[in-house]
Amino acid sequence: MHLKYNVFAGESLERLAALSDGLFAVALTLLVLDLHVPVVEHIHGERDLASALLTLTPRLVPYLMCFLTCGIFWVGQQTQFNLFTKADRNLAWIHIAFLFAVTLLPFSTALLAEYLTFRTALLVYWFNVLLLGLGLYASWRYACHAGLTKPEVTPEHDAAVERRIVVAQTLYAAGAALCIINTYWSIAFIFLLQLNYAVAPRIRPLYRL
Amino acid sequence: MHLKYNVFAGESLERLAALSDGLFAVALTLLVLDLHVPVVEHIHGERDLASALLTLTPRLVPYLMCFLTCGIFWVGQQTQFNLFTKADRNLAWIHIAFLFAVTLLPFSTALLAEYLTFRTALLVYWFNVLLLGLGLYASWRYACHAGLTKPEVTPEHDAAVERRIVVAQTLYAAGAALCIINTYWSIAFIFLLQLNYAVAPRIRPLYRL
Amino acid sequence: MHLKYNVFAGESLERLAALSDGLFAVALTLLVLDLHVPVVEHIHGERDLASALLTLTPRLVPYLMCFLTCGIFWVGQQTQFNLFTKADRNLAWIHIAFLFAVTLLPFSTALLAEYLTFRTALLVYWFNVLLLGLGLYASWRYACHAGLTKPEVTPEHDAAVERRIVVAQTLYAAGAALCIINTYWSIAFIFLLQLNYAVAPRIRPLYRL
Amino acid sequence: MHLKYNVFAGESLERLAALSDGLFAVALTLLVLDLHVPVVEHIHGERDLASALLTLTPRLVPYLMCFLTCGIFWVGQQTQFNLFTKADRNLAWIHIAFLFAVTLLPFSTALLAEYLTFRTALLVYWFNVLLLGLGLYASWRYACHAGLTKPEVTPEHDAAVERRIVVAQTLYAAGAALCIINTYWSIAFIFLLQLNYAVAPRIRPLYRL
Repeated sequence: MHLKYNVFAGESLERLAALSDGLFAVALTLLVLDLHVPVVEHIHGERDLASALLTLTPRLVPYLMCFLTCGIFWVGQQTQFNLFTKADRNLAWIHIAFLFAVTLLPFSTALLAEYLTFRTALLVYWFNVLLLGLGLYASWRYACHAGLTKPEVTPEHDAAVERRIVVAQTLYAAGAALCIINTYWSIAFIFLLQLNYAVAPRIRPLYRL
Repeated sequence: MHLKYNVFAGESLERLAALSDGLFAVALTLLVLDLHVPVVEHIHGERDLASALLTLTPRLVPYLMCFLTCGIFWVGQQTQFNLFTKADRNLAWIHIAFLFAVTLLPFSTALLAEYLTFRTALLVYWFNVLLLGLGLYASWRYACHAGLTKPEVTPEHDAAVERRIVVAQTLYAAGAALCIINTYWSIAFIFLLQLNYAVAPRIRPLYRL
Repeated sequence: MHLKYNVFAGESLERLAALSDGLFAVALTLLVLDLHVPVVEHIHGERDLASALLTLTPRLVPYLMCFLTCGIFWVGQQTQFNLFTKADRNLAWIHIAFLFAVTLLPFSTALLAEYLTFRTALLVYWFNVLLLGLGLYASWRYACHAGLTKPEVTPEHDAAVERRIVVAQTLYAAGAALCIINTYWSIAFIFLLQLNYAVAPRIRPLYRL
Repeated sequence: MHLKYNVFAGESLERLAALSDGLFAVALTLLVLDLHVPVVEHIHGERDLASALLTLTPRLVPYLMCFLTCGIFWVGQQTQFNLFTKADRNLAWIHIAFLFAVTLLPFSTALLAEYLTFRTALLVYWFNVLLLGLGLYASWRYACHAGLTKPEVTPEHDAAVERRIVVAQTLYAAGAALCIINTYWSIAFIFLLQLNYAVAPRIRPLYRL
C-alpha cells in the first residue's frame, strides 16, 4: 500500500503562523484606505481643516473596533499555537477557514459603522465574530483530539482555553440579543466587552473567567 | 578560476517561505476590496439593507473559490518545503514564477465569477490553475533532481507528491473539458473537487489517491 | 482554583514581531498607491512627460517622510524586542496599540503634505509621532517591570533606551512648538531631526544622547 | 560614560529579512490591482470577451517585468543576508533605503509600460534599477567593512558578489544608453538581460561573470 499524501501534508506550524500574521497585518490596514485627506478646494483656513478632521473622527471608531476584534482573535490564535507542537492538513484548513472570517471583518465592521441603528448590520457583525469564535474552538478541539498539543498542556490549559472562547461568545451573543431593545445597547455592550478583553485592568467578575 | 555567484545565491528556504506567505496573505485579501458597503442613499429600512446584502452574496462565491484555490496550493507548497533542506537559485526562481501565477488568481477568479456562462472565462481560470500545478510539479522535480530534499524523503514520498499533483491536474482538466457541454457543469465539478481537497472527510475513491 | 487563560496568553514574541513586520511593510507601501502615472491624453512629447513627472515630485516628499518615520520606529521596536526574552498578553496589547498608531501614519503624513502651512495638520502629525513614542515607552517600562527583558540587559541599556525616547520626543515637541512662528520652521526642524536619526554621521551633540 | 543607544540598536537580521519579505510581497501584488475584469456591458459573446482579454494582454508585460526585477533584487538581498551574521543600525537603514527604491518599482515600471517610446520613462526606470543596485552595493561594502559577514565568507565570495552587482549595473547602463538609438532597443536589451538573470540556462559569456 502506498504512502498517503495527506499524512505528511501541511505540517508546518511556522508557515501557518506566518500566513496568519501576514493576513492579519493586511486586514488591520485595509480600513485605513477609507480615511481620505480632506479635499483642498473646501478648505480655506485652520477652522475649515479642524472641522473637516472632526467630521472624519467617527470613521476612526469602526477602525478602532476592527483593530480590537482583530487583536483579540490574533492573541487567541497565537496562544493556541504556542501550545501546539505541529500542524497537520486538517488544522491548516481549519485556520484557512478562520482566516476567511478574518478577511470579512473590515467589511462587517464598516457595515456596522455605516448602519449603526440597523439590526441587520449588527447581526452580520455578530455572525462574523461568531465565525471567528467557532474557528478557534474547532482549532483547539481538533488539536487536542489529534494529539497536536505540547506534552506540558494540562487539562487546566484545555479548560481555560475552552472556557475563554465559550464565555466570550456567550457574552457576544447576549450583546447581540440586546438589539431587541436597541442596537446602541448592543454596540455599547460589545465595545466595552472587547475593550475589557484588550485592556489589562479587567472587570473583576469577568477576570476570574 | 573564480567562485561563481550563482553557486551560493538564493539558498534561504526560510525567506522563500516568508515571501510566499506574505504574497499569499495579500492575494487572499485582494478580493475583499471588491466588497463595498451598500450606499446609504438607497437604504431606507431594515428590508432595504437585508436585500442589498443578499444581492451582494454572489460576490462571496468567487471570494470563497479564490480562498479554496489559494489554500490548496499554499498547503501544497508548504508540504514540499517541509521536505526540502535548503533552496538554491533555480528553486527560488521556480517559486517566483509560481507566485506570479498566484497573484493572477484573484483576477481570473473574478473573471469567472462575472462571466459564469463563458467558456473563455472558464478556460482562463483553468489555465491559471494549470500554471499553479506546473509550478509545484517543476519545484518538486527540480528539488529531487538537485538533491535539495531531506534524507528522510523516501521514493514513497516522491510518488505521493507527484501523484497528488498529476491526479488533481487531470481532474481539473476533465472539469474544464466539461465546458463542451456546459460551463455550469465545469464550475460545479471544479468547485466540488476543490472542496474535496480542502475538507477532511473526502470522497472515498479520491482519498486513496 | 483554576488556571487563568491570561497567564499563558500572547507569549510569542516571534509572532508579535511577524505581525509588526507585516503591518510596517503594508504601511510603507500604502502611500505609493497615491503615485499615478501621468494620463496619456495630456502628454504629447518628452517635455510634457518630464514636466508632468516634475510636478509629481512633491508627492515624493511625504512618501519619504513616512518612510523615515516608519523606519525610525521600526528600528526602535526591533531594538527593544532584541532585549526581551518573551512577550505576554499585556505587552502584546501595548504593541497592538502601537501598530494602530503606525497605520495612521500614512494618513497624517499625507495630511501634512497637503496642508503644509496649516498648524492643525502639523499638530495632527506631531500627535501621531507622540503616540508612537508613548507606545514604545510603555512597552519598555512594562517589559522591565514585568521581568520580560533578557538577563544581560543592564541598567545602562535601560537608561539608554529611555533616554533615546525621551530626548527624541522632547525634540519633536520643540519642533512642533516652532509652528507658533511658522509651520515651515517646524517641518524643516522635524525633517532634519528624522534624517539625523536615520543617517549614520549624526550631529555631534545629539549623537552623544 | 554611558552606553550609546546606537551601539545595540537594529541588530536583528531576521526582522530586517521579514520586513523586506513583507514589502516585496506587497510590491509584487500592487500591479495586479491595475488588472480589471472587462465591463459586462461591452461583452455580448465569447468573441467579445476573448478580444477584450487580448487587449488586456499588454498590461501583463510590465507586470512580468516588475516581477522579474523584484525577483532579481530579492534574490540578491537574500544571498547577502545568508552571508551575514547579524545586522546593525546602519545596515538596517541601508536596507530601509533599498526598500524605498523597491516600492517605487511598480510606479516606474507602469510608467515605462505606458510610455514605451519616451526616453524620459526609460531613464526613470533605469534610475530606479540603479538605486536598487546602489543599495545592494552599499549593503555589501558596509557589511564587509563593519565585520558583519560570517567567518566562512572568503575574498572569493566578496569578489563574486561585487562583480555580479557591477557587471549587472554596467549592462543595465549600456541598455539604457541604447535609447540614444531607440527606446525599443533599450527595452529589449534590458528585458533579455533580466530574463537571463532569472532563467537557469544562461548565456555562456555572461554565465562566467
